[in-house]
Amino acid sequence: AAAAPGQRQRPGASRSAVSRPWGAAGPPGSSAFHAASSGFQEVTLTGERYGVRRLPFARLAGGDVAFFERLMPGRVVTDPEELKPFNVDWLKSVRGCSKLLLKPQTTAEVSQVLRYCYERNLAVNPQGGNTGLVGGSVPVFDEIILSTVLMNQIISFDKVSGILVCQAGCILEKLNEYLEQQGFIMPLDLGAKGSCHIGGNVATNAGGLRLLRYGSLRGTVLGLEVVLADGSALDCLASLRKDNTGYDLKQLFIGSEGTLGVITAVSILCPQKPKAVNLAFLGCQSFAKVLETFTTCRAMLGEILSAYEFMDDKCMELVEKHLKLSSPVTGSPFYVLIETSGSNSTHDEEKLNNFLEQAMTSGLVTDGTVATDDKKIKATRFIWISLIPQMLWSLRERITEALTHDGYVYKYDISLPVGKLYDLVTDTRARLGRSAKNVVGYGHLGDGNLHLNITAESYSHSLLEAIEPFVYEWTARYSGSISAEHGLGFKKKQFIQYSKPPEAVFLMQRVKAMLDPKGILNPYKMLPSSS
Amino acid sequence: AAAAPGQRQRPGASRSAVSRPWGAAGPPGSSAFHAASSGFQEVTLTGERYGVRRLPFARLAGGDVAFFERLMPGRVVTDPEELKPFNVDWLKSVRGCSKLLLKPQTTAEVSQVLRYCYERNLAVNPQGGNTGLVGGSVPVFDEIILSTVLMNQIISFDKVSGILVCQAGCILEKLNEYLEQQGFIMPLDLGAKGSCHIGGNVATNAGGLRLLRYGSLRGTVLGLEVVLADGSALDCLASLRKDNTGYDLKQLFIGSEGTLGVITAVSILCPQKPKAVNLAFLGCQSFAKVLETFTTCRAMLGEILSAYEFMDDKCMELVEKHLKLSSPVTGSPFYVLIETSGSNSTHDEEKLNNFLEQAMTSGLVTDGTVATDDKKIKATRFIWISLIPQMLWSLRERITEALTHDGYVYKYDISLPVGKLYDLVTDTRARLGRSAKNVVGYGHLGDGNLHLNITAESYSHSLLEAIEPFVYEWTARYSGSISAEHGLGFKKKQFIQYSKPPEAVFLMQRVKAMLDPKGILNPYKMLPSSS
Repeated sequence: AAAAPGQRQRPGASRSAVSRPWGAAGPPGSSAFHAASSGFQEVTLTGERYGVRRLPFARLAGGDVAFFERLMPGRVVTDPEELKPFNVDWLKSVRGCSKLLLKPQTTAEVSQVLRYCYERNLAVNPQGGNTGLVGGSVPVFDEIILSTVLMNQIISFDKVSGILVCQAGCILEKLNEYLEQQGFIMPLDLGAKGSCHIGGNVATNAGGLRLLRYGSLRGTVLGLEVVLADGSALDCLASLRKDNTGYDLKQLFIGSEGTLGVITAVSILCPQKPKAVNLAFLGCQSFAKVLETFTTCRAMLGEILSAYEFMDDKCMELVEKHLKLSSPVTGSPFYVLIETSGSNSTHDEEKLNNFLEQAMTSGLVTDGTVATDDKKIKATRFIWISLIPQMLWSLRERITEALTHDGYVYKYDISLPVGKLYDLVTDTRARLGRSAKNVVGYGHLGDGNLHLNITAESYSHSLLEAIEPFVYEWTARYSGSISAEHGLGFKKKQFIQYSKPPEAVFLMQRVKAMLDPKGILNPYKMLPSSS
Repeated sequence: AAAAPGQRQRPGASRSAVSRPWGAAGPPGSSAFHAASSGFQEVTLTGERYGVRRLPFARLAGGDVAFFERLMPGRVVTDPEELKPFNVDWLKSVRGCSKLLLKPQTTAEVSQVLRYCYERNLAVNPQGGNTGLVGGSVPVFDEIILSTVLMNQIISFDKVSGILVCQAGCILEKLNEYLEQQGFIMPLDLGAKGSCHIGGNVATNAGGLRLLRYGSLRGTVLGLEVVLADGSALDCLASLRKDNTGYDLKQLFIGSEGTLGVITAVSILCPQKPKAVNLAFLGCQSFAKVLETFTTCRAMLGEILSAYEFMDDKCMELVEKHLKLSSPVTGSPFYVLIETSGSNSTHDEEKLNNFLEQAMTSGLVTDGTVATDDKKIKATRFIWISLIPQMLWSLRERITEALTHDGYVYKYDISLPVGKLYDLVTDTRARLGRSAKNVVGYGHLGDGNLHLNITAESYSHSLLEAIEPFVYEWTARYSGSISAEHGLGFKKKQFIQYSKPPEAVFLMQRVKAMLDPKGILNPYKMLPSSS
């Protein structure tokens, strides 16, 4: 379950995700997301659509269900209606046909489930909040769904070190709310936070909106507890900032998308809650100016810069058209969203003001507005509005949602050298011409991460062939990554060779074979089929 | 080759480390370090001192040397005199008897060397700057030394992203100097920077002085090129901040101490050079006040806090006695060194001043001085001195050196929950009584990392037995790490079980067997002998 950008919710607005793991990802009141809660059967079965063959795992028998019922009475789901949402991904692009969902509460239960499945050769699909975008979080065929939904206990939090230890099924937003009460925040933030589980975040090495400031999970995750395919538990749940005793095994599981083990608990280093947050929303006349604005603001805002996001005017058009959001800044081909987070609001506002004056004077930026949660309104050439920054954020964060209203969406999540980032959008647009409805680009510019999205009235195989492998080849030419933060899951696994050499893929397959020799954990995902 | 704290050098003061890898680690002019350049033979051979048995690797034959001479003419060392410093570690605590040192310049050469050694079953000791503190960087017996000393080319640096790509043998300090000219710095800094190689830093997952601010190498290292035991090269040298295409194989090699592969090139994310750096040196009346000062300063300095180091009065005594350094602050049982790094000197000084006033008023701190590279001298209750911060740093950084003058040193590098950090020093001191000369504690408090050092007139087995396993058991009781940043190397490998469960050690051994089935890479290191 990876990041589902586009639905950053205002705190407290989310509904419980326990019984409807995907439901809370949609902003409450959005009709599109109410519609999304029905019609699961309309999604073509993955095996049929993609012509995949089921591997020779055992098939579920009555005795198996009885075993699980004894192990965790009342937490075994076999009702087809109840199973539906767990079989379909958030984008409604893939569908499995699992007949069994298990909801363990403890690591010992996960261990017993896997030991049993391993012996019986039953395939297992570990599932967090089911918010992933590459088809990694739902079964492809009849894999048993192992949900972390009931593993939602906070184990400990240390206010001196800022280290949180919790079970894998804790919802990201709930953790952040808990931490805010103690003056801390989670080191990651993403659109799906109202639904996604921290275990899924770690399993997919989620990136998101705070990576620019707080770094990747590879640095902030301090420890993991993992259950391996054969049911043995691996306790690497250290709460230490530094530990150089042997190989850092937990790194194997971060970003392994549930194919090497099931993460059951996480220890993570949390930064202090910033005392001041400001947001600037700016218009730029070219992508070159977007880049120059970035280097200028990085130099002038320095340590308080916490996000630098960009979007093109097509994105803004779709957000206005489909979601009726209106932007305070208009008429530019590119927009930039800059967030500062710091410990002294006076200092931060002074830095931000200096930067804005400089950006304006040198013509990098032609228009802009600033949202501040501070009560004072500034008198500068910019309009400072007393507005919770969240409202400006929604212009950026709800782009994914706006896209789903525009038709069928072809989604690409690309890392590139920042200088080349937008050329891919321009080239794709030129290549597709009128066969695409819209070709839009936005993303985490500060991280070199572009979200390229192409919409069409409906799915068309010929359009797909015009896009792929073109986009992947283009990316490989500039040594980019064909999946910056979404992972490979089911949908992108065959394209790994565009970003990794054959020796690396071969070694990954050996790692998989070592840890899961029967291949029962999240089969058909992440690594290319060897056939 | 890990961190050798204690000899942080002033920029430009280091000598070439090419022919004397350990030499440049000592501060020029220090007689102790001149003395250290002779007398290698006096160090007892490791095999003899520790009673280790040589494993049945092949022995070097004339044909082997001839092969290497053809492969890299003029870069094959067999002269026993020239080999001496490469066989002994920086602390002069372990000594191997290698008869061959190879100095490849390219990855292709490393590949050919390993392919040959793998076929011939010749053991290999990869060596960077040979500044490690746990006996991991020198041979135990006659392993061939594979030095990265001539692999010192910078491959590329991108000023927009801050991503540096270079060969593994680049010296950390040289890289930092190169980056400073471009307005950037390396994300790590440590005492041995004048000698240590970036490849060695990565291979040992070096921590050091900037970890509090810029995080660990697990987050900042973006890519690696590695040659595996069988000579095959693994190119994971991406220059991307985000890349979720498959398992993150490079993490296997970070911190593997040369036992899984030889790192030949590194891609690393570098932060901007801070425009303002300030240093405060403070006296505290108890360790409880050291802790409270930490939480106060973290809250008030926030994003500009870049180091929080502490030392006890015993450390200060030894630095004054053996190195004739004098501290501007005296008469306290504990001292704290706080560094701020930021983008606006006025803002930073205001934050620092506010914090110092608060710390003084509330009685957390009884005395202090501030060094600033800013020309203005502040008028506050604190003395602000116009002094390069480096000079105050040396009080902290030369503790290791002062200790070597005090006699035989028993060194421990421990991670603990910060609240328990100093109790280990107190308990050890009480336990050892008059059998130890000095028991001192200092370290990276912000990271929960204690350097516990015990000195005695000379090595004594009974003293060692009074310390070990006491220190390890104490650490394990509080779920600490018996090696926070130094690694396990040769000297600590048998103690891994105090910080890792048997299942984890077993899995590490399987990883080792998979990547290096003949065990030729840095044998006798990191993992416990299976016998």
